Amino acid sequence: MDHAVVMAGGSGTRFWPESRAHRSKQFLDLTGGGPMIRQTLLRLFPVVPPERVWIVAGIKDAPHLSHRALGIPKRNILLEPEGKNTAPAMAYAAAAVAREDPAAVVLATPADHAIGRVPAFQAVLRKGLRLARETGRFVTLGVPPTHPSTGYGYIERGNPFPGNVRGAFEVVRFAEKPDLPTAKRFLRSGRFDWNSGLFLVSVATFADRLTKFLPEVDREIRRAFHGDRAGFPKRLALAYRRMTSISVDYGILEKEAGILVLPANVGWSDLGTWSSLHEFLAERGDNIAFGDVILSDCRNVLVRTDCGIAAVLGMDDVVVVRSGDAVLVCPRSRSEEVKGMWEEIRRRFPTMA
Amino acid sequence: MDHAVVMAGGSGTRFWPESRAHRSKQFLDLTGGGPMIRQTLLRLFPVVPPERVWIVAGIKDAPHLSHRALGIPKRNILLEPEGKNTAPAMAYAAAAVAREDPAAVVLATPADHAIGRVPAFQAVLRKGLRLARETGRFVTLGVPPTHPSTGYGYIERGNPFPGNVRGAFEVVRFAEKPDLPTAKRFLRSGRFDWNSGLFLVSVATFADRLTKFLPEVDREIRRAFHGDRAGFPKRLALAYRRMTSISVDYGILEKEAGILVLPANVGWSDLGTWSSLHEFLAERGDNIAFGDVILSDCRNVLVRTDCGIAAVLGMDDVVVVRSGDAVLVCPRSRSEEVKGMWEEIRRRFPTMA
Repeated sequence: MDHAVVMAGGSGTRFWPESRAHRSKQFLDLTGGGPMIRQTLLRLFPVVPPERVWIVAGIKDAPHLSHRALGIPKRNILLEPEGKNTAPAMAYAAAAVAREDPAAVVLATPADHAIGRVPAFQAVLRKGLRLARETGRFVTLGVPPTHPSTGYGYIERGNPFPGNVRGAFEVVRFAEKPDLPTAKRFLRSGRFDWNSGLFLVSVATFADRLTKFLPEVDREIRRAFHGDRAGFPKRLALAYRRMTSISVDYGILEKEAGILVLPANVGWSDLGTWSSLHEFLAERGDNIAFGDVILSDCRNVLVRTDCGIAAVLGMDDVVVVRSGDAVLVCPRSRSEEVKGMWEEIRRRFPTMA
Repeated sequence: MDHAVVMAGGSGTRFWPESRAHRSKQFLDLTGGGPMIRQTLLRLFPVVPPERVWIVAGIKDAPHLSHRALGIPKRNILLEPEGKNTAPAMAYAAAAVAREDPAAVVLATPADHAIGRVPAFQAVLRKGLRLARETGRFVTLGVPPTHPSTGYGYIERGNPFPGNVRGAFEVVRFAEKPDLPTAKRFLRSGRFDWNSGLFLVSVATFADRLTKFLPEVDREIRRAFHGDRAGFPKRLALAYRRMTSISVDYGILEKEAGILVLPANVGWSDLGTWSSLHEFLAERGDNIAFGDVILSDCRNVLVRTDCGIAAVLGMDDVVVVRSGDAVLVCPRSRSEEVKGMWEEIRRRFPTMA
């Protein structure tokens, strides 16, 4: 059967002051359509029914993970004792899925991305699940690039992949976030897609490659799953303490041969920064406002306030965010640097980080 | 004897969101040295002792006017039932002072201006009091202009005034806020000072000119003061309801002949806007911050927060103010327009104005 694993372990310091040490990006309502993670789940449910949708998240985020609010069974919420990046998270989830359904194919997706064209996205997911099932290969989702972004990893397409499922290509290689000249070259070549971070694979294939490429992670997760139910949390905590922090991309995909890519023109954005949120919402107008906002003679501003009012006069291309007891103001073009500022805030005003 | 009258009836909508409909500019701590009105009083006390310092203010501001906090006798706080500009306010105060001391000279000053060089300012006030007493004339304080401001009224100096008190000039005329070419001409001529709004005059002269130039105001105030003590508030309310709203400048000074001006190079600012506050505080550095503020790569910014933190990244020449439930962001050069924005806020979010 088809399962989905929503990886919700991220932090998202670049969305400070809305994201905080204890309120990660995936739990924010950035687009006005509800928390990112809930939007992610609602997009998946028509493809994979709620009882087969799983979430892997940090135990620190448990307060945000009401299974009733999320609409999935309680046992499908897998809590990691600490964050060790996506490879341990996927290893944990795949083991949980496989224990129930050894023939499962999983659709693994970040919890905090945005999709503009949902029906098209769902069609690609269905195709991808079929392709992963029929081929036993890893299938990644590539996003046709619209500009030479230096903020995304890239996937180089090779030959079209023959078979029942149309539109797939062999992957030549994964390229990490490039510098600008390289990104421009990628774009010109027409052979590169952005790496969406979403992939599909059977639990059998995943388990096999885990053993092969990340034997330590494999061993630790197996140990945690081996034993009585009552002792599981303790064994899992021990496993997590021992495992290296490593991503699926770096630990498995970049080493694996025969990966396929499905280009998906679905209005995807990873919503990496305030500026990319502004771009994602651009069709709503030049100025994007959430909450009680007064704008006077502004252009290309993103203004958000969670209570009270924000009045912005005569500004262009800025981000103004008031959330709780904090206010952020920066040019749109520099919203990437909020992450660095967050580090300073954590040092100087720890309760505000 | 010498008395001082602090005119504290203004509103200061250009300092929104710190100033609000019920928190006027003179009660804000804009410079970090305490509320403007308290700074004004503390500057006066070495010149005029507290028992002869009076405040005229709106009854709506009574909650801000603790005589204990202000350090003057309770009976010296004169509450106007409604605001009718400075002529009725001064008429009320002058009548109260004259009832006690018919030979008084009063120093009338706005409550919400800032002075950079306090000892020099106090020396000029002493000189002005003497001059007003010896001549029986109105004496105004002129501020040598530093730039062709279009935000101030101007006073044109004529001949030096002979007599015991040095440094005074005859006033040729008062000029209202000029346009830029006129302001530049004024500056070049070397004959114009900014009108500080501060003046000194004997209560006898003031009463005489009030009868002459503003007989209606004179009559109403006389009526209010004529009768039993218990009925005074009611009579005053009636008088204020009937009086026209008019300023001392427009109603008396511009019509009066023989006014004197004392140029006063005392670091005066009327703190009319956020930008003028920034200029007044410029010696503290390019960036001015009040409260828990984090600035990263900013130039010439004024950032204030009354609680929580304000983080500003990569901005130049902006004002960021968070006060209570409101945030304001605007370029320094446009802080004059906050007044207009306040009107919109009052319409759309009345509780925030």
